[in-house]
Amino acid sequence: MAASNLYAIIAGVGGGTGRSLALKFSAAYPTVFLLARSPESYDSIVKEIKASGRNAVGISTDVSSASSVSSALKAIAAETANKNLAAAVYNVGGKFVRKPFLELTEEEYSAGFEAGGRGFFNFAHGTLPLLLETAALKEAVPNPPSLLVTGATASLKGSALCSSFASGKFALRATTQSLAREFGPKGVHVAHAIIDGAIDTPRLKESGWKVNGGEEDGTIAPDAIADAYYWLHTQPRSAWTQEIDIRPFIEKW
Amino acid sequence: MAASNLYAIIAGVGGGTGRSLALKFSAAYPTVFLLARSPESYDSIVKEIKASGRNAVGISTDVSSASSVSSALKAIAAETANKNLAAAVYNVGGKFVRKPFLELTEEEYSAGFEAGGRGFFNFAHGTLPLLLETAALKEAVPNPPSLLVTGATASLKGSALCSSFASGKFALRATTQSLAREFGPKGVHVAHAIIDGAIDTPRLKESGWKVNGGEEDGTIAPDAIADAYYWLHTQPRSAWTQEIDIRPFIEKW
Amino acid sequence: MAASNLYAIIAGVGGGTGRSLALKFSAAYPTVFLLARSPESYDSIVKEIKASGRNAVGISTDVSSASSVSSALKAIAAETANKNLAAAVYNVGGKFVRKPFLELTEEEYSAGFEAGGRGFFNFAHGTLPLLLETAALKEAVPNPPSLLVTGATASLKGSALCSSFASGKFALRATTQSLAREFGPKGVHVAHAIIDGAIDTPRLKESGWKVNGGEEDGTIAPDAIADAYYWLHTQPRSAWTQEIDIRPFIEKW
Amino acid sequence: MAASNLYAIIAGVGGGTGRSLALKFSAAYPTVFLLARSPESYDSIVKEIKASGRNAVGISTDVSSASSVSSALKAIAAETANKNLAAAVYNVGGKFVRKPFLELTEEEYSAGFEAGGRGFFNFAHGTLPLLLETAALKEAVPNPPSLLVTGATASLKGSALCSSFASGKFALRATTQSLAREFGPKGVHVAHAIIDGAIDTPRLKESGWKVNGGEEDGTIAPDAIADAYYWLHTQPRSAWTQEIDIRPFIEKW
Repeated sequence: MAASNLYAIIAGVGGGTGRSLALKFSAAYPTVFLLARSPESYDSIVKEIKASGRNAVGISTDVSSASSVSSALKAIAAETANKNLAAAVYNVGGKFVRKPFLELTEEEYSAGFEAGGRGFFNFAHGTLPLLLETAALKEAVPNPPSLLVTGATASLKGSALCSSFASGKFALRATTQSLAREFGPKGVHVAHAIIDGAIDTPRLKESGWKVNGGEEDGTIAPDAIADAYYWLHTQPRSAWTQEIDIRPFIEKW
Repeated sequence: MAASNLYAIIAGVGGGTGRSLALKFSAAYPTVFLLARSPESYDSIVKEIKASGRNAVGISTDVSSASSVSSALKAIAAETANKNLAAAVYNVGGKFVRKPFLELTEEEYSAGFEAGGRGFFNFAHGTLPLLLETAALKEAVPNPPSLLVTGATASLKGSALCSSFASGKFALRATTQSLAREFGPKGVHVAHAIIDGAIDTPRLKESGWKVNGGEEDGTIAPDAIADAYYWLHTQPRSAWTQEIDIRPFIEKW
Repeated sequence: MAASNLYAIIAGVGGGTGRSLALKFSAAYPTVFLLARSPESYDSIVKEIKASGRNAVGISTDVSSASSVSSALKAIAAETANKNLAAAVYNVGGKFVRKPFLELTEEEYSAGFEAGGRGFFNFAHGTLPLLLETAALKEAVPNPPSLLVTGATASLKGSALCSSFASGKFALRATTQSLAREFGPKGVHVAHAIIDGAIDTPRLKESGWKVNGGEEDGTIAPDAIADAYYWLHTQPRSAWTQEIDIRPFIEKW
Repeated sequence: MAASNLYAIIAGVGGGTGRSLALKFSAAYPTVFLLARSPESYDSIVKEIKASGRNAVGISTDVSSASSVSSALKAIAAETANKNLAAAVYNVGGKFVRKPFLELTEEEYSAGFEAGGRGFFNFAHGTLPLLLETAALKEAVPNPPSLLVTGATASLKGSALCSSFASGKFALRATTQSLAREFGPKGVHVAHAIIDGAIDTPRLKESGWKVNGGEEDGTIAPDAIADAYYWLHTQPRSAWTQEIDIRPFIEKW
């Protein structure tokens, strides 16, 4: 099967990493599907990709809702008869709540799990059957089908005031590990990236926050993150990486 | 304040660790409150403690429900005027679901978080204000107030077929770490125990399962777990342990 | 066998943790042997213990030398006919070298391993046969024989300028884990403590360094560390802890 | 500076990963220097690279000897006037000793540290000044200068009978982390790879050992490891990975 019959799905797109991921995977596969809560998150990326002669389809999706994910996958199925899913990327950040524990509502606390737990469950539940179909094609596809997941510093360590975000990211890492061990032997490469630093997004620039003293390359370039994910996707199955960390050179931790 | 004016709360009691915890803490403090879904989990323990001349109160509670936890705490408040909470123990196991990921329902997957995430949130939200009051008494209480939490092997590693349980246990550990860092400096000792092996419960005995070849002491004695929790409770604040592992001598991992 | 026929060995004594360990274990067992490079490290502790009516013997030992350790053990054997070793504690800090990597000599770099690697090899090689003899006595001894080891923050993380100390502490932890898995099933409890903060030693006091702003209990009390080691020693074999961390309540990491 | 003025050094070559690393880096840089104890380890690789029209120089080196490493670096300096070091790879396995702890000699135990500690110290001490010179060239070189290091499963966990190997690999990881934090901010990318499975080497094939039941791709392809190292070398400094794991798809751990 030529790469021309393959497509990718990116959940969680916006101005930063998601856009870079969309551009990177669309360079390899003719069509990418971009999932985000609202069109304003994907519209400009869809235009950018189409302007480059590739195809992109934005679908408004709330990953924490099983029916919303199900609808998105039906829409994707309708456009991909005889095509196969090469890579599914889960880059959903969720709402970042930072406040004293006793001021958190149950809903705020659970927001981390909505993104890192329930949302990923829905996404993985919907895409893994498609990735298994691709795995069955074996060498007929250029790269093993991949499920790639975005973690953070908080995936490894719970800090004060961050119980919501950390519990979601820990849950996401746990689920990713479980899936790597269940679906790896079936030919699906499941990998987790720890993004361990501030990402150089438009929003960060607007904020005026000088990360690492504003030093050049002191924030992580989203394109570099996308390159790393794509490289993981190309690893042969005899040598898969399950987890990488990514951080700017300037960090001393 | 004498120990006679202090009490403990144990959430998650039944035939094994919870019973041992209840007996251990009731030996130190005259009253313990035992939370479990149904009276059959705590009735015999309440009787056993009362027979020994101490006081125990069972309260049917669904920790994953904020209102149920709130009701339980109101009932406790009604019986503890002028008394202080010495230790709150979260020993809720939750439903253990082990099945292929694609056969899991969203509800089954989320069961892990209901116990390890939402349930602990409710319990910690309700007990931390009481523990802070005790912390304000400083040297007037014999031991720093403690919030002690039960983890498992799955707190550290997601295995195939165990995404529900592992995601809940990872989330629990994340939240515990966050709380340790927020409330430690305020005088509340938050600690997490990794129970890394099979526990010698009545249910295990009935099952006939020969753990570690049925070797003597090849399963973890619940009383020994309770001793460890109580010891953590007695640590002076200059030297707190945040995490311990507990496993039988026979394990080679 | 009564506790009166048991003894303990503490390697690495001085003004802080080692002294507390010596006092703690001598309270349980009538004789303790204290190993340090020079008499000035153990003389006052030996006097203090003897003044309390217990017995202590100081032996000048360089643990990084196999023959020096061998001599020490012969001296111990000469005084312990018909007695058994209850606990061996390895609390050797070694030389702490902190400097830019390119300024380190090979000898300075290897100093970490001399203490954490070679020194512990010699100590464990000499004491494990004695601990195995004690293990063979089973319930005739009050506690499982134990080999207890002092680690540090640098056991888990290599920081800039600390390659010597970190490589030694990592090697020590690796060896401890290997021994826990080999000798645990044979009845010897091997455990590792991560001392994760500054210890309140006479030397620290003299230095005038205000750890954690000089806050009360902001440094770790050596007696509390000794209590933790002794508690590990008393764990029943069905529920052994392999690693604990110890840090002051005020730490936020 | 064009790639034509850059070179690489690979320490630890032989039939497997080292050969693949040599071929991979020689494809990018015109000259590679190959260090191994004896010519039989590098002779055929040197021939193979020369046959492809690139340059390779084998140098018999015992990395655990400072003077041997120093001689090797002098020989390299003599051939690289006006050239710069692009990448230094430490792939030295050392002697793997697996035996009961009490049967280990001090020399056998220390063999792990000779390779993972002292050997790496000598190699890093000699190559980091050269890598810093390359870092000073900034964008004039195609990729940030890199120091890449081979770890193993035993870098993370000490198993029974493996104290020698594990202590060396732990020490290596500690040193690598220290260097990453000291030299990263100075522009040198220090990264560590956990090779978590059996490598498909000629020696493994000869042994007849059927890893993972002999399943296809059940052992790690050395070329895939080399690809991973080279990819790490190409990461831009805003997004460096400090540690990756590599394992066959079939592994369930």
